[in-house]
Amino acid sequence: MILSALLTSVGINLGLCFFFFTLYSVLRKQPVNVVVYAPRLLHKEKEKSEPREDEFVLERLLPSTGWVRQAWDVSEEELLSNLGLDAVVFMRIFIFSLKAFAFAGVVGMFILLPVNYVGSQLEIDFADLPNKSLDSFGISNVNNGSNRLWIHFCAVYVFTGVVCYLLYYEYSYISSKRITFFYSSKPQPHQFTILVHGVPVSAGNSVSEAVESFFTENHPSTYLSHVVVRRTNRLQGLINDVEKMYRRVVHLKSETQSSQRVKREGFLGLFGRKVNLLEHCEKKLEELEDTVRLEQSSFAGEEVPAAFVSFKSRLGAAVAVHIRQGLNPTEWITESAPEPEEVHWPFFSASFMKRWIYKLIAVIAVIALTILFLIPVVIVQGLANLNQLETWFPFLKGILSLTVVSQVITGYLPSLILHLFLSLVPPVMIMFSSMQGYISLSQIEKSACTMVLWFTVWNIFFANTLSGTAFYQLNVFLEPKNIPKVLAEAVPAQASFFISYVVTSGWTSLSSEVCRLFPLIWSYVGRLFAGKDDDDFDVPSIPYHSQIPKILFFGLLGITFFFLDPLILPFIVVYYALGYIIYRNQLLNVYAHKYETGGKFWPIVHNSTIFSLILMHIIAIGTFGLKKLPLAASLTVPLPVLTLLFNEYCRKRFLPIFEAYSAESIVKKDKEDQNDPSISEFYDKLVTAYEDPALLELRRSRRRDGHTSPLLHDA
Amino acid sequence: MILSALLTSVGINLGLCFFFFTLYSVLRKQPVNVVVYAPRLLHKEKEKSEPREDEFVLERLLPSTGWVRQAWDVSEEELLSNLGLDAVVFMRIFIFSLKAFAFAGVVGMFILLPVNYVGSQLEIDFADLPNKSLDSFGISNVNNGSNRLWIHFCAVYVFTGVVCYLLYYEYSYISSKRITFFYSSKPQPHQFTILVHGVPVSAGNSVSEAVESFFTENHPSTYLSHVVVRRTNRLQGLINDVEKMYRRVVHLKSETQSSQRVKREGFLGLFGRKVNLLEHCEKKLEELEDTVRLEQSSFAGEEVPAAFVSFKSRLGAAVAVHIRQGLNPTEWITESAPEPEEVHWPFFSASFMKRWIYKLIAVIAVIALTILFLIPVVIVQGLANLNQLETWFPFLKGILSLTVVSQVITGYLPSLILHLFLSLVPPVMIMFSSMQGYISLSQIEKSACTMVLWFTVWNIFFANTLSGTAFYQLNVFLEPKNIPKVLAEAVPAQASFFISYVVTSGWTSLSSEVCRLFPLIWSYVGRLFAGKDDDDFDVPSIPYHSQIPKILFFGLLGITFFFLDPLILPFIVVYYALGYIIYRNQLLNVYAHKYETGGKFWPIVHNSTIFSLILMHIIAIGTFGLKKLPLAASLTVPLPVLTLLFNEYCRKRFLPIFEAYSAESIVKKDKEDQNDPSISEFYDKLVTAYEDPALLELRRSRRRDGHTSPLLHDA
Repeated sequence: MILSALLTSVGINLGLCFFFFTLYSVLRKQPVNVVVYAPRLLHKEKEKSEPREDEFVLERLLPSTGWVRQAWDVSEEELLSNLGLDAVVFMRIFIFSLKAFAFAGVVGMFILLPVNYVGSQLEIDFADLPNKSLDSFGISNVNNGSNRLWIHFCAVYVFTGVVCYLLYYEYSYISSKRITFFYSSKPQPHQFTILVHGVPVSAGNSVSEAVESFFTENHPSTYLSHVVVRRTNRLQGLINDVEKMYRRVVHLKSETQSSQRVKREGFLGLFGRKVNLLEHCEKKLEELEDTVRLEQSSFAGEEVPAAFVSFKSRLGAAVAVHIRQGLNPTEWITESAPEPEEVHWPFFSASFMKRWIYKLIAVIAVIALTILFLIPVVIVQGLANLNQLETWFPFLKGILSLTVVSQVITGYLPSLILHLFLSLVPPVMIMFSSMQGYISLSQIEKSACTMVLWFTVWNIFFANTLSGTAFYQLNVFLEPKNIPKVLAEAVPAQASFFISYVVTSGWTSLSSEVCRLFPLIWSYVGRLFAGKDDDDFDVPSIPYHSQIPKILFFGLLGITFFFLDPLILPFIVVYYALGYIIYRNQLLNVYAHKYETGGKFWPIVHNSTIFSLILMHIIAIGTFGLKKLPLAASLTVPLPVLTLLFNEYCRKRFLPIFEAYSAESIVKKDKEDQNDPSISEFYDKLVTAYEDPALLELRRSRRRDGHTSPLLHDA
Repeated sequence: MILSALLTSVGINLGLCFFFFTLYSVLRKQPVNVVVYAPRLLHKEKEKSEPREDEFVLERLLPSTGWVRQAWDVSEEELLSNLGLDAVVFMRIFIFSLKAFAFAGVVGMFILLPVNYVGSQLEIDFADLPNKSLDSFGISNVNNGSNRLWIHFCAVYVFTGVVCYLLYYEYSYISSKRITFFYSSKPQPHQFTILVHGVPVSAGNSVSEAVESFFTENHPSTYLSHVVVRRTNRLQGLINDVEKMYRRVVHLKSETQSSQRVKREGFLGLFGRKVNLLEHCEKKLEELEDTVRLEQSSFAGEEVPAAFVSFKSRLGAAVAVHIRQGLNPTEWITESAPEPEEVHWPFFSASFMKRWIYKLIAVIAVIALTILFLIPVVIVQGLANLNQLETWFPFLKGILSLTVVSQVITGYLPSLILHLFLSLVPPVMIMFSSMQGYISLSQIEKSACTMVLWFTVWNIFFANTLSGTAFYQLNVFLEPKNIPKVLAEAVPAQASFFISYVVTSGWTSLSSEVCRLFPLIWSYVGRLFAGKDDDDFDVPSIPYHSQIPKILFFGLLGITFFFLDPLILPFIVVYYALGYIIYRNQLLNVYAHKYETGGKFWPIVHNSTIFSLILMHIIAIGTFGLKKLPLAASLTVPLPVLTLLFNEYCRKRFLPIFEAYSAESIVKKDKEDQNDPSISEFYDKLVTAYEDPALLELRRSRRRDGHTSPLLHDA
């Protein structure tokens, strides 16, 4: 790629970004779009029953930058109180990356880039600047054996030091935030509750009796109550049916013309005798509700050998979690309970062995998917080429023969297919994660986040770098000795690809994030065809498992190319700066938090950054070797070792804080509770907090609009 | 090696063994040797003050087999009550190995050996049996691509299954023994006590105050008392001096001629004025004791930020160990306390970082020693060859020119040097282990045991197999793909070496174990020259860290050569059968247990066996590949995977039992204590149980023989 081509691409993408931002600033002001662009705020207002003003002013049609200022002005405390610690940690990724790459950018652009540019290894004729190949800005242009490479060597050391310092600072900052957050939290059910798996049941006893007798025996002073888990998949399905039917009844009632309520009974409502549709639906709804009640009452039998056990103090729960309970380590397995709202009910597999085997299968499936992902994609891309399409759809022949069309198809179809497949990955990983027997949504998302991250690194970084067959790639990793050399040869060659990847994929993903094009179109379609009203909207939760890997991957690119081709750094800085504003805006307006992990996503960020650093070091060793500076290569070897030691120190110093709270803080909170008069009320709530929602009594409550609703009894 | 040579060697070694056993059966009956052959029994009798009869009967000079019957007759319960669970576990290694290799021996000798023998791959001419090469009994003699190799394939699968079943059985047997042992134990200080490291001390506060306030704050209901650790290396040295001096005084007093008590003051007692030696020594002893007392009283300042904290219940201690205590994970680090007698006082390094760095250095040192051990050995062996000796010691020239002498030197000197170096390894590993910051002798020995095991496997198995330079060996492990092929080529070639290794080194080590030649000679020397009397003897502790690796290494040889060269199996069965009797005898008569880990050595045995199995599988894959049976090679691949899964299951099912006791059992024991009237007395003892012996008051007490002794106040 030459410089002018890069600049053109940058210009086009920058223009597109600003176009989308302008579009967004107009669209967001239309009241009709408020369900797309500010569902969180809308939901909050609804709760407070504040009506929204809908008057039309001209200003609504003018683009403005008010949202940028708004997003910029939010303080971390506001973010924390509105969206919890996870959102703060999410934003810290941007702050950390901005700091790191601001430093890297200055070093790269003002020291490394000039050094590379004056090299003459590539023997590019001194033509005018715009036609220069991008390679002349990379390390490949520095002459072999040149002492200038020591500048790169120093840069690698200094940059590693700076990143490690920033990592340490962030880890310590977020740790202290986490502890403060815990200290300021009110008593919450999950702090007092554990989940116990693998309850051994002797003949003639129920699970409930076994749990009761075990915990009154072994934790007499702290045990409070328990709730046995039941298998409710089928019941949950029925309840979903009830809710669907209920919505339909409500919808039918709200429609003014009663004529529409009459429909024929038979196929597609076209044949058979006419019935009053509303009456028909209401009758069906009642039938369904009866079935649910019947199921619920006859459901005592299907107990799973697992239970939520609540304690009178946090320390009681901590003791039960941290000390092995039963004589047999595969029985009475305990873990901390998640928040009641985020319990993943569908999957409570019975035995220790089953959980373990499922976990194994999931791990194998993820590895297989990650390694072999490209094979089906390449095949499908091959099938979707021009000739194949002509064979399948002969009527397209005319259109396909047009040059423009064929260019678009050959140019964009493969990339489109790749992106389609890629967008399927996060949901698939969520599926695999939930197979692993995690009991909470947050654990599932955290696990999926890690998986998607490694998937991205493998399939975008390594698969692009080590072009060739999948088997060849595997071969490289079976011969560890050659890795530095292979990477040092392959990675710099892909510099221009990754620069344009940052500019296109990175920047575009940000503008599509802010514009929310799919939800926007979906909302219009819903309103036009399905007759959905504004009351009927979901507040999306922050999709950590798909966003964090994407953001971290650009960090990996920045770190690995820092000394290879510093030209990538300004684009990455721009990405993080834009991302900082846009995600703050989205967190404020769009997303709500469904659960609170207390910052448990940060260790993933830390580990990923350490991995990027090590990868950079390995490439550096290979590069100095290839550049005939073996001394520099040898002197780089201690760097990954030191980095790993630093990582090990952080694991010991900070990671335990993210795994569990200390006795000191637990006891302090427990003592506060003892002086709290409302604690007995809390205990009453705690006893029923972990009832399976599917087993709660179906209740019809009058809503303010007068409809009857099969709400679930929730207190 | 040919068969007749092997048989000769077996005959010689068998003869030697029986000679030593006969010698032992005579020597052990001499009253003068009782301190060598039955120090444990002697110690027990001394405690009970039973006098030993010394009458001479002729029978004393006749060899007998009574000791074999005696050793055979001991039941596991007796072993358990006399020597604790560790000794039982130690004997289970023999029982497990005997079972496994009895099966392997039958399969190997009656199925695999005939199959190998009728092969014709090696084209050895059908000479008479005695002159046949041992190779014709190995798998190398089976024709390439022959379907008979499927018999080996099945044998590998069946043998793995049998070994895994036996491993599972033993693990479960020992686990249940461990739990029973805990249930039947009396309240012991270490069950109620933890060690806390990294006590943060604010200015103006002492460590003791910090510990006191932290535990009364966070464990108000269970905290009992604490003892701060102090740096006492120098004091310990002084106390050792006092004891040495005291012994000298006692010795001088017991000597009858008072003339010997007079000695000159000056150099070597030859010049200067005459003094009464006894008076001189007694004066010195008193001076030393005064210094010790002064040191002890002025010692309040040198506190280490660590303390032994005792609790009122086992559960209290378990809570403090299993839940992270302080906000900062590098402070208030807790671990279970060892038994008071086995605390390793000398090493209490101050900070978290220091401990961690020491650990790292020790690990690196062990790895370096393990990998590079052979280099200095080979060099020293080179220096000690014939020509070198002649250059150094010209006067030996005459002797060295004799054929017999030169043959002995060239034949035995290198092997002697290797054995000398090898015998240095266990003490060196103990030194490295104690550097790692372990606080108890048992932890140090356990860690040293693992290290010595890997050292043995690397330096005897791999270094012999992969002959060549150390760097070449390392190279193999950098190319994991080639490992099976390299091993499959190299290992079978060493079959006859390892067979003679079992016969010579294995059997000989057993007879030297039973005869205790070094302690025997030492005791004679002591009695003749140093005038030691029979009262002055040590009961040795079981040297697990040097014995277990030796025993396990023969298991590794048996497992890896099982299908390669089954001829090794009978010799290994003989080794284990002899070992079973001999070690039972030694445990009964010689060794005492200095500590009780409750069977924590078993996981090492389990892991080592799993490693041997995986090694066998890797060699099998390589061998089937070399033998042109790629299908068998591929079908063997699942075997290591299944074995690892089995191991993973065992880790989950049994390992936690060996790491800590469960809440269920702890609470049960605590409840028993509540009904025990003697518990308050125990609490009183507990408070002072972990005083550093160096800080206890020096006290002169009258022993029954009338000597005054600077005994340490111990209650």
